[in-house]
Amino acid sequence: MTTIEDFTSQYGLVKKIDAFGYMDYLKSNPDAPRKHGKVVLVTADTPLKSVPRRRQDHHDHRLIDALRARGIDATAVLRQPSMGITAAGSKGGASGGGKASLTHPELIDWGLCGEMAAIAAAQNLLVSFAEKAIDEGKLDTILVPRVSEVPSRSLRSITVDAGKNNVAEKVVLTPTSELMQIVVLSRSMDELGKRVAAMIAGTKDGKPVQFGEFIDLWRITDMLADAVKPALTETVNGSPVYVHGGPFANVSIGIPTLVSVEMACALHDVVIVEAGYGTDAGAQKWLDIACREYGAQWPSAAVVVTRASTWRDDPELAWRYPFHVNRLEKLDIPAFPLINLWEGEDDQVPSLRETAAKLGFRDPIVGNLYRDGGEGLADQIDAFADVLANAAAPAARDSHRGMPLIDNVKWVAENAYGVPADRVVLKDGFLDSLGEASELCKDAGLSLDDLALVAVKSPATMTDNDRAPEAERTVTLKKVEVHAGAGLVHVNLTTSLTTPMPKIV
Amino acid sequence: MTTIEDFTSQYGLVKKIDAFGYMDYLKSNPDAPRKHGKVVLVTADTPLKSVPRRRQDHHDHRLIDALRARGIDATAVLRQPSMGITAAGSKGGASGGGKASLTHPELIDWGLCGEMAAIAAAQNLLVSFAEKAIDEGKLDTILVPRVSEVPSRSLRSITVDAGKNNVAEKVVLTPTSELMQIVVLSRSMDELGKRVAAMIAGTKDGKPVQFGEFIDLWRITDMLADAVKPALTETVNGSPVYVHGGPFANVSIGIPTLVSVEMACALHDVVIVEAGYGTDAGAQKWLDIACREYGAQWPSAAVVVTRASTWRDDPELAWRYPFHVNRLEKLDIPAFPLINLWEGEDDQVPSLRETAAKLGFRDPIVGNLYRDGGEGLADQIDAFADVLANAAAPAARDSHRGMPLIDNVKWVAENAYGVPADRVVLKDGFLDSLGEASELCKDAGLSLDDLALVAVKSPATMTDNDRAPEAERTVTLKKVEVHAGAGLVHVNLTTSLTTPMPKIV
Repeated sequence: MTTIEDFTSQYGLVKKIDAFGYMDYLKSNPDAPRKHGKVVLVTADTPLKSVPRRRQDHHDHRLIDALRARGIDATAVLRQPSMGITAAGSKGGASGGGKASLTHPELIDWGLCGEMAAIAAAQNLLVSFAEKAIDEGKLDTILVPRVSEVPSRSLRSITVDAGKNNVAEKVVLTPTSELMQIVVLSRSMDELGKRVAAMIAGTKDGKPVQFGEFIDLWRITDMLADAVKPALTETVNGSPVYVHGGPFANVSIGIPTLVSVEMACALHDVVIVEAGYGTDAGAQKWLDIACREYGAQWPSAAVVVTRASTWRDDPELAWRYPFHVNRLEKLDIPAFPLINLWEGEDDQVPSLRETAAKLGFRDPIVGNLYRDGGEGLADQIDAFADVLANAAAPAARDSHRGMPLIDNVKWVAENAYGVPADRVVLKDGFLDSLGEASELCKDAGLSLDDLALVAVKSPATMTDNDRAPEAERTVTLKKVEVHAGAGLVHVNLTTSLTTPMPKIV
Repeated sequence: MTTIEDFTSQYGLVKKIDAFGYMDYLKSNPDAPRKHGKVVLVTADTPLKSVPRRRQDHHDHRLIDALRARGIDATAVLRQPSMGITAAGSKGGASGGGKASLTHPELIDWGLCGEMAAIAAAQNLLVSFAEKAIDEGKLDTILVPRVSEVPSRSLRSITVDAGKNNVAEKVVLTPTSELMQIVVLSRSMDELGKRVAAMIAGTKDGKPVQFGEFIDLWRITDMLADAVKPALTETVNGSPVYVHGGPFANVSIGIPTLVSVEMACALHDVVIVEAGYGTDAGAQKWLDIACREYGAQWPSAAVVVTRASTWRDDPELAWRYPFHVNRLEKLDIPAFPLINLWEGEDDQVPSLRETAAKLGFRDPIVGNLYRDGGEGLADQIDAFADVLANAAAPAARDSHRGMPLIDNVKWVAENAYGVPADRVVLKDGFLDSLGEASELCKDAGLSLDDLALVAVKSPATMTDNDRAPEAERTVTLKKVEVHAGAGLVHVNLTTSLTTPMPKIV
């Protein structure tokens, strides 16, 4: 009998799975045994800039440990952390800490099996191919950036071919690249190849030129042969955890690969999907991009992580967490608050429960997860486990395909950030940028309005002025960028950083 | 019983071996079973620019197949090919072709297990650390280049922090980096760390500053945790082949890692070491750097690969191949010519044997290796196998440590290129460069003359004018560069390319 083991190979301390092959096998063998796991979105409050944040990823691990302690076959699917961010000195990584560690955190944090590096090399080779196309007169302007696995602020603005042609470029971190998005969204090598071929390399006389018109596609797909395989590791308690894909949540799509989640759903009953940063970032992108536009599974429940400080340290921003929880509930996603205590906060549990009750939340799950691990949660997750046990298979939601881009952004502003359409502001130059993007798409045989919207924003804010009273908050639209291969259109909001290149500390 | 298996783990289609751990185990357990394999250097004629060249690496695979067919426990240790070169469109790679292929050529050619990428990331992180040191006033000039895994001619000269500080830089391919040299030369993680710490990051007020003075060394060594493990793959005939390290032979040291060769010698009776490019490049570097200065094993025999065209297509350069064979014989290394035929050259075998006899060579091994594989050689290697069976353990050779650098270069010019000391020319500026390097070393507490010499040269030439009559050939010295961490000093010869960054084809 063919099983997942036939698609799995050891890769040092972790395993790698040919997920494309396995999903293809299931498709061709509809009677093969498989599960139909439910997706749980683990997301978080929008982070406060003022306090160091423990990543919600830790909580994924603890939740699966807690679920598995109750006999539920649960797993988590995480994004691979950016080695650049780890290298830069942000201590976290995605591998947890304390009682919720993965078994091989050093591996996850420092490049895993080379997936990011392969994506970086392939994206950079695309740029080299584009340069060759310029030499050959097929292109006059390149629109894809080089990437670096390692941050360096001085790479934000560079001049290449210095002393001769002096071409201005910016270098971005690998997780921000279109190729990373393509790896996340593709369900087969064939789809991946087609998406790479459809990427707009640049322009010639103002008209878009796609990579498929001039590259040896096999060189790119050969480079990515292993990078498309999810890694399987486990928590220190032996719970399985898949790691695959790592786009940033604020400037990109912030979700693990679709194929890794779908494979996990075929293998487990509950699949916790880590949606990066706040509910306004990764979760919004899972729901509105992955589910609505790319056929991913609508979550059967959500866990929204926050800290005790949410209602204590920064009252002006205290509106955000309830907004997130309520938004998910309104979308028929049962949203469970998870409040992670730090040392010295145990005595605040009664008042936290009281606040949660006043806000109309479901009973929150509360614990010092670093200290106590998943075990500390096991007796608090009855309601959560009940919801998962009784949830019907979720229906697909409407696509926004064809909705005019500005309406689509306004829809996101209202639904995900709480800012109504009349307070969405178009910055000078936005309409020009929109017009250019629209023209570029048309010339490439696409409609801009058929692309899925990626809101490019700051990780720590939802609006132009989160601290203002609700009626004064605005969202400003700055510019538009097309990622035709990934099928995405980026709209930058005012506070966005388009070249995240952290400082080495 | 502890065996090599305890240090081996599966890594997808290949195995990775904790060679540091195994060699450490053997050191602590002198009675543990082990072999004392003999080293065979496989090298080649200096390539002719005018014809496409099949890499001598192919012949390594075929030779071990031929030796193993006779019951000899032989293996080969190869360098990992530069993905950049493969990506650029040079078809070869290092994985052979036809009947001499490795089982997974696509893997070897396209990044193996991410070793090169990890070295690239670590070298780039060193540059980022150096930039931080500049911000903190600890450094004012950076002396280490960034590297790229992918070639792009426009990266040869770049300006970073463009529009602000406008700092000029060059980007080089990973295989040319000092960190790659350190990975090749280090026999433990501890040694590797010390060497990284000893690298000269740059200068402050003209005085050298070493990385150990300001970096978090663990971030670099964590990044390299897997990259220091040799990969084990095999030929299509099942012969074991180790792949580890990949410095270029013309601008760097052109040899696989010392630890991979030493591990192979503990596991097999005959270890074929691939020394890159011609005898004047990788072989010279194995002998004069690895053996003389770093305690590697002197070869018990050599195989010097050439093509039928050597004596046919370019008579002006025909002196080079006999020079190489004779040089090795003079060093008491039995040197076996291996003539690789192309299609349509079978009828030239008698005349090739005649020429070889006239030149006083040992009986050449002749065959169309692509077509016939190692089997075609099996009945021609009696003399070669006899030499290996009867060779005494080779003695260590004299170090050049302490020899004045100019004398050392003159010694190499005479011995490896056939140009006597009085025809070694110092280019304008060379003595200044020498003086600066000497001063830099002194300020770092080193003597320039204690560093091992790396001749940086063109891959296709041995002298300034290989086509001139012997008495007119010269070697010009251009500049000096110190790699204090690797313990090396580079001297650029006139025809050298210091930023090999091939064109994408």
